[in-house]
Amino acid sequence: MKLDHVNIATPDAEATAALFSKLFGLPVVKRVTVADQGVKVLKLDTGNSIIELTEPTGPDTPVGRFLAKNRPGLHHLCFAVKDIRGEVARLKSAGVAFVNEEPKIGAAGLPIVFLNPKSCGGVLVELVEKKDA
Amino acid sequence: MKLDHVNIATPDAEATAALFSKLFGLPVVKRVTVADQGVKVLKLDTGNSIIELTEPTGPDTPVGRFLAKNRPGLHHLCFAVKDIRGEVARLKSAGVAFVNEEPKIGAAGLPIVFLNPKSCGGVLVELVEKKDA
Repeated sequence: MKLDHVNIATPDAEATAALFSKLFGLPVVKRVTVADQGVKVLKLDTGNSIIELTEPTGPDTPVGRFLAKNRPGLHHLCFAVKDIRGEVARLKSAGVAFVNEEPKIGAAGLPIVFLNPKSCGGVLVELVEKKDA
Repeated sequence: MKLDHVNIATPDAEATAALFSKLFGLPVVKRVTVADQGVKVLKLDTGNSIIELTEPTGPDTPVGRFLAKNRPGLHHLCFAVKDIRGEVARLKSAGVAFVNEEPKIGAAGLPIVFLNPKSCGGVLVELVEKKDA
């Protein structure tokens, strides 16, 4: 599976984007707010992948609760798959637990699921369905 | 800068590699131990980037100390650069602090430096010098 993006949780996505642009030359290629997930998302292009910055829209959101307990920093990885429901079924049969096994629509406007970090060596892993995956 | 790899700290790199191979179809493309950094490293190929798994060779190593304080999981990002000493000078003049500003030889046999997470939005960032960066 291709690495679709690496995600960083930050209290201020614009400030982190400005910093990463200055330090590492990464341009912002997308800005979007996903209201039902409580995140403002900025995407930075590394040429071969994407670094996604998520800022919570409030404290009572998944990323807001993460930042109340943890410092800003690396949050999750995302792999691209062609058939997300097929992958969920395959991974469930392999014993994987999910944060949400029913796909939601993510920041790219595409179906996403999150796997439980306990099933993935401590790493929060997202899958996104992309036709060209 | 291109995303050279994403790193995961784990107490058992072979077990995590076997898990990621089963769940996400990622093959192991390299196994190496870097004695002076106290890590056993396995590299998994995602097609467009690399996921690196590091297992400490003992408790009194940077990753051993990390895992004594933190759960296994995402540890750092690495960007590839053509001229690591030139980038260190540029970043220093931009106010960046370093874990090591004098390049060491990393798991790929190439010069690496680590930037202080406090200078990078909470993210531990490595730079690796690659001629094709």
